[in-house]
Amino acid sequence: MRDEFRADLQIVSQLLVDMAEGIRAAMRQATRALLTADRRAAETVIERDAEIDDLYRHVEERVCDLLARQAPVASDLRAMITALHVAADLERMGDLADHVAKTALRRHPSPAVPAELRPIFTDMAAIADRMAEKIASVLAKPDVAVAAELDRVDDAMDDLHRSLFAVLLGEDWPYGVETAIDATLLGRFYERFADHAVNTAEHVIYLITGETTPPAN
Amino acid sequence: MRDEFRADLQIVSQLLVDMAEGIRAAMRQATRALLTADRRAAETVIERDAEIDDLYRHVEERVCDLLARQAPVASDLRAMITALHVAADLERMGDLADHVAKTALRRHPSPAVPAELRPIFTDMAAIADRMAEKIASVLAKPDVAVAAELDRVDDAMDDLHRSLFAVLLGEDWPYGVETAIDATLLGRFYERFADHAVNTAEHVIYLITGETTPPAN
Repeated sequence: MRDEFRADLQIVSQLLVDMAEGIRAAMRQATRALLTADRRAAETVIERDAEIDDLYRHVEERVCDLLARQAPVASDLRAMITALHVAADLERMGDLADHVAKTALRRHPSPAVPAELRPIFTDMAAIADRMAEKIASVLAKPDVAVAAELDRVDDAMDDLHRSLFAVLLGEDWPYGVETAIDATLLGRFYERFADHAVNTAEHVIYLITGETTPPAN
Repeated sequence: MRDEFRADLQIVSQLLVDMAEGIRAAMRQATRALLTADRRAAETVIERDAEIDDLYRHVEERVCDLLARQAPVASDLRAMITALHVAADLERMGDLADHVAKTALRRHPSPAVPAELRPIFTDMAAIADRMAEKIASVLAKPDVAVAAELDRVDDAMDDLHRSLFAVLLGEDWPYGVETAIDATLLGRFYERFADHAVNTAEHVIYLITGETTPPAN
């Protein structure tokens, strides 16, 4: 029974790693679509979001099956509940990549992001990518130190988010309201992507240590 | 055992109803803060978000305890997993009310929403309130027909969201970029509130019928 549980848990972990790699690839490609007006990249992200949703459903089915068959308790039960939370966060991160891709597509062939904002979005995307990489890594090999780093990386995302608004609200903003709206929503998509990465890290820390942090806003 | 499970499930259901009523009250008060520049209302929403977070943790603890003690299967297990999903959606709806309140507070004593947009936000808030009311109702007394109505009500929210952008992007928009950014984010907060209400309804439908719908974007 115990070995069977370990084997099942391993399958669930692998599904979560697959999800994390999937959403990382999705956000990379969505960023390329955004910054280089790459229509094909945007379409690929949107098409492949269904694969991430499928993985999410697989995790749920596996966990429910495992709860029903094995009735785990204590840390094994905690691992199952954590898997559900993590899968939900990753599924949402996939949606946010999809939203970035759709914004790129809506403005295509024009770029959705004007020249002044490209450095900020390039940096936001780099941070999002680092966070997704760390998430995939801690899901493959749980590590409190690596998970805790996510919170620090998220501070850099928040700083970028603030500097985005500083540019949009500068007196010399030349692009009008429509571009400001796009940039506001895009900024929010990257920031929420990072928030979900932090949530995921907190779930992993809880799994390892049993210590919880309050839900993030 | 069976009676004990029913009693425990009843406690979990009541916690979810309390959460739904809490987030409904929070969004009503956040809207008042927004539309009447009511500082006290905004502060109350922000202070009381911790109560919703506490309820969320109580649901999680109760469900984990129940899974460990009673090892439910089939529809009883489904009810537990559904409770976790619903609690997560409601917790997030509380955060969104908190975001609306914080936006109102940031602009106080100026109104965050200019006169031209008040009718749209009044309508969005009315729909959000109807949705929260229906959610509290289906959680107290699961009903597929009432839950299914949420999707239709959400269409009205999406229409309002589109008309918000039409006003912001009109040639005669007189308020500049900052007000447009606030309105964009506020529109997103109400729209996401509605999305989570629809998710909750879908979870309730799944609980009753065993039929699932794909995760919403």
